[in-house]
Amino acid sequence: METLQAIFTRRSIRHYTKDPVSAETVQKLLEAGMSGPSACDFQPWHLVVIDDRKILDEIPTFHAHASMLPEAPMAILVCGEPDVSRYWQQDCGAAAENILLAAHDLGLGAVWLGLYPRENRTVPMRKLLNIPENVSPMALIVMGHPNEQKPPQGKFTEEKVHRNRW
Amino acid sequence: METLQAIFTRRSIRHYTKDPVSAETVQKLLEAGMSGPSACDFQPWHLVVIDDRKILDEIPTFHAHASMLPEAPMAILVCGEPDVSRYWQQDCGAAAENILLAAHDLGLGAVWLGLYPRENRTVPMRKLLNIPENVSPMALIVMGHPNEQKPPQGKFTEEKVHRNRW
Repeated sequence: METLQAIFTRRSIRHYTKDPVSAETVQKLLEAGMSGPSACDFQPWHLVVIDDRKILDEIPTFHAHASMLPEAPMAILVCGEPDVSRYWQQDCGAAAENILLAAHDLGLGAVWLGLYPRENRTVPMRKLLNIPENVSPMALIVMGHPNEQKPPQGKFTEEKVHRNRW
Repeated sequence: METLQAIFTRRSIRHYTKDPVSAETVQKLLEAGMSGPSACDFQPWHLVVIDDRKILDEIPTFHAHASMLPEAPMAILVCGEPDVSRYWQQDCGAAAENILLAAHDLGLGAVWLGLYPRENRTVPMRKLLNIPENVSPMALIVMGHPNEQKPPQGKFTEEKVHRNRW
């Protein structure tokens, strides 16, 4: 898929078929995530591939917007290391977008679930996956082969554009 | 350009030709930035197109890594509204990555300069562009037609991948 087409047509997909995601596809998603830019090239991210059914099904018990998890074959948790870079949230946001675009390009559907800075989500996720204290679980990218279709969503707003000065 | 190719071959480009960037291209970059995901679809971003020569040349006086600015025909400043979303840095990071990928796809070269949370950069930028107090200048995407070439940079690191549990 052309890059601009991927950017303009990507939507949050929350329904998936029962088909698994291949290991080759997962590898491409991980490489896409780590191809993002980072301040001083510090690469302050960690990526957790989650395909353990029990873990996926546990997440909705503490995340209010995770009801699609029992339907999803997998997820990638984007984590950051605040001690490594003061820009970690921005860099991990870019990594998450790369994963979303790569998933869309590879024919998958995906949705970004926010965790950090909500402690009622990060604390149970940390416990569930045994994430060390110096690593913050930031964004869960839930994905699978799409079982819903959505038209492109034009979100461009001229009021949010400024020219040279406010 | 194919999406994965754009993701895998994008590099930070800091040298540009004297050719201007067309208004049509700028419009696509802005649309790409605003096509990113955001928590609850709050779209906590603002984009400032900067092509005023005086403003571009002023930025290196307070930003230590902005020496390419006098060579660049333009930049897009990605700003966020912290009061609109606690996830604003992550959302604006995704918007910035969309702009970088779109620029690469459209034949431009670009580099992301960090601002927020460094006050020695955000305060003078706010003053220079008259940015209101509730808006944070986060990332400056400097760009132009590339006058340097860089090979793809494989940044995948297996040690940063975890499977189900840490």
